[in-house]
Amino acid sequence: MKKVILLFIFSLSVQLNAQSSAHEEQIKTLYHKALTSGKAYDWLDHLSNKIGGRLSGSLNAERAVTWGKTELETLGLDRVYLQKVMVPKWVRGTFEYASIITGPGMSMNVPVCALGGSIATPSSGLRAGVVEVKSFEELEALGEEKIKGNFVFFNRPMPAELINTFEAYSKTVNQRTQGAARAARFGAVGVIVRSMNLRLDDFPHTGSMRYGDLPNTMRIPAAAISTNGAQLLSSMLALNDDLKFYLKLDCKNFPDVPSHNVIGEIKGSEFPDEIIVVGGHLDSWDLGDGSHDDGAGIVQSMEVLRLFKEMNYKPKRTIRVVLYMNEENGLRGGTAYAQYAKRNKEKHIFALESDAGGFSPRGFVFEATNSQFKQIDSWKPYFRPYMADRFELGGSGADIGPLRDNKVVLSGLRPDSQRYFNFHHAANDTFDAINKRELELGAAAMSSLVYLVDQYGF
Amino acid sequence: MKKVILLFIFSLSVQLNAQSSAHEEQIKTLYHKALTSGKAYDWLDHLSNKIGGRLSGSLNAERAVTWGKTELETLGLDRVYLQKVMVPKWVRGTFEYASIITGPGMSMNVPVCALGGSIATPSSGLRAGVVEVKSFEELEALGEEKIKGNFVFFNRPMPAELINTFEAYSKTVNQRTQGAARAARFGAVGVIVRSMNLRLDDFPHTGSMRYGDLPNTMRIPAAAISTNGAQLLSSMLALNDDLKFYLKLDCKNFPDVPSHNVIGEIKGSEFPDEIIVVGGHLDSWDLGDGSHDDGAGIVQSMEVLRLFKEMNYKPKRTIRVVLYMNEENGLRGGTAYAQYAKRNKEKHIFALESDAGGFSPRGFVFEATNSQFKQIDSWKPYFRPYMADRFELGGSGADIGPLRDNKVVLSGLRPDSQRYFNFHHAANDTFDAINKRELELGAAAMSSLVYLVDQYGF
Repeated sequence: MKKVILLFIFSLSVQLNAQSSAHEEQIKTLYHKALTSGKAYDWLDHLSNKIGGRLSGSLNAERAVTWGKTELETLGLDRVYLQKVMVPKWVRGTFEYASIITGPGMSMNVPVCALGGSIATPSSGLRAGVVEVKSFEELEALGEEKIKGNFVFFNRPMPAELINTFEAYSKTVNQRTQGAARAARFGAVGVIVRSMNLRLDDFPHTGSMRYGDLPNTMRIPAAAISTNGAQLLSSMLALNDDLKFYLKLDCKNFPDVPSHNVIGEIKGSEFPDEIIVVGGHLDSWDLGDGSHDDGAGIVQSMEVLRLFKEMNYKPKRTIRVVLYMNEENGLRGGTAYAQYAKRNKEKHIFALESDAGGFSPRGFVFEATNSQFKQIDSWKPYFRPYMADRFELGGSGADIGPLRDNKVVLSGLRPDSQRYFNFHHAANDTFDAINKRELELGAAAMSSLVYLVDQYGF
Repeated sequence: MKKVILLFIFSLSVQLNAQSSAHEEQIKTLYHKALTSGKAYDWLDHLSNKIGGRLSGSLNAERAVTWGKTELETLGLDRVYLQKVMVPKWVRGTFEYASIITGPGMSMNVPVCALGGSIATPSSGLRAGVVEVKSFEELEALGEEKIKGNFVFFNRPMPAELINTFEAYSKTVNQRTQGAARAARFGAVGVIVRSMNLRLDDFPHTGSMRYGDLPNTMRIPAAAISTNGAQLLSSMLALNDDLKFYLKLDCKNFPDVPSHNVIGEIKGSEFPDEIIVVGGHLDSWDLGDGSHDDGAGIVQSMEVLRLFKEMNYKPKRTIRVVLYMNEENGLRGGTAYAQYAKRNKEKHIFALESDAGGFSPRGFVFEATNSQFKQIDSWKPYFRPYMADRFELGGSGADIGPLRDNKVVLSGLRPDSQRYFNFHHAANDTFDAINKRELELGAAAMSSLVYLVDQYGF
């Protein structure tokens, strides 16, 4: 009996080793192909340089939809289709302009941009004093007496000591998202927000802001100022707190317009009803060409399916790529996708998102149960040779968030975060900021993870 | 008795925990200071932008020596001194020029640069046919019959599928270091070497080459061609293998000149005779300003001692920073340092080198015994929050290599390697290619490792 058990254990271990080395081979091939004959970089070149910035509701966003569908159709997938979604339409307008005025004939231009969703200033612009604050607590302590009739200047920098720059972002971004709504209640005429950027430079960084339930009549314009501009304004205020700030924005909100998620899929051979989704967001802000945010995630996600087709890999489960529309200022695509999935009673077992820049991948985060994570964690050795073996529990991604149901495993690619906020939502988020190998390594890591999920399910 | 033992174990574990959390605090402070009030980036700005490229034997190299000494003297170290070393002096000359000639009046310029150590062409340049090879085996198979009177064009690309780009470098760099000596034996008139660059672009990458024991009369000039230039030349040869290549170089070797290693140290309070060295190389190639190679390593190493002084940390052991001269084309500084150490019977317990670029640190490599590595590996948890916890056995660094004696532990900082060879030895290795946070994270990781070695010794 003992012999039989030993024999059984031995044959099981041989099987497991054979399986494991087959996986190693598949992953090696995925990396090899991604790095030597990948298509992600050429795709991104087109999306960034031939299409460019593609804010929801813009002509460019529609060009990106057409491009995504056309490219996916060349891959020989089992199905490529569009999913209609209504999206907000906000337009930056023809110009935006600001200056610090310290006396008659003494003014200095500073780089600003409207925050997404902001209303315009009057066409002659706004001229008012400036009250600098670092927090909402400080704002409230100053109250209407000090705030009324002035600009509020939110100048809390991203904390440099945090290693994960997304954490630093999360500690400061409420100035941008809620600053205007908060300051308006104290009678501010507008808000100027320090750009979410860890570096001192001249690029203002846009991003979404919301007025919430603030009545239309109380809404005030909101602009981001570059970090160098913020430093300058702050030091000028220290010398002369009576200075004036001039701001002109002619951005505008329009009614919602139709747009689309772009979807492609390879039907599963064994479990076609178990769906694995990989995606990024197709829309971007309008200042740069959205190469890191999130052109990178788009082309990496498309590359996962392309690599499977090139390798002639027949997945057991259905593998679907989704190019979500409108992550930046509405999340309408991600929300609609989850609604369609629910309505059609689709069973999603895994959703992976890449929306943290096209930098060297260091691993993944997962929203998973303990037993699911234990399984995932056992795959770590496959990723170690590729230096993408940092697996952690944590928030995955915005677009796949609406799928969350305590059963589906959600995951986000986690590239090195140090450079991301140099480019995020700014005019320098352009194709030249992308390193081909880093982009390709992300696509290979994602493909490898999707491959393993397809092999084992949850 | 049992109770006494339990009590002993308990008190030991309390002590160990207290010690471990004290280390965590120190490391946290090192990172905090490096990221919020570090000096590495400002130092590098000066070294790169005010001094610039600093090839051994050049005036700029001497300016860098003076700068390094002066800066170290401001830190309040116990000792700052120079160590004399004779270095080679090779000068690029006033211009270098190449073209592909496909017919009368039909020529195209291609970007080239002389390899360090190469002799010049005749002053009228060299014009000859081209034989393309991918390996020395291919060269030998062709033999004198095919090679004689022609240029040999070494065109083996760095393999893109390797994750560690230094490994890809090691598989191709012999074309650059030995190509001329090998080709000369078959009567080649010169060699053109594909730049060691994983990207297709227009920068030729220089680097050292050696003639070895080849007699002076047989020596031939050697140039690097940009990767785009190499692709072009190769495709032109495929169309017309009778094309001619024109090359003019006016570089020159001079007799050795004196230069210096720059050294600063904090004397150990408990074990002053146990020396811990941290360093990088002060010389660089002449095309760019050597920001990544190795300005980054220089300022990170200086920052280790500066951080200790700023924190008022009194090391148990002697901590020494060495700015080595002449890593690039001679290793004379590293060699001389080890000789001085041996002559003075100094006991080195640890040497750390940063010479792999100023990118996000991912960990360290170590040359250590199993028991030494076991101890080092137990420190990994301290580095995990900073994502610098990839510890491996492997070759450490060129400058500290001469210290190797099977007792001293040698280590190299290992930053992300994906972008390094875009810049390595080329005109675009400049300050703008440096990200401040990545540079600072490297300095913080190095400081943390040196701190732990100082605490525990080996």
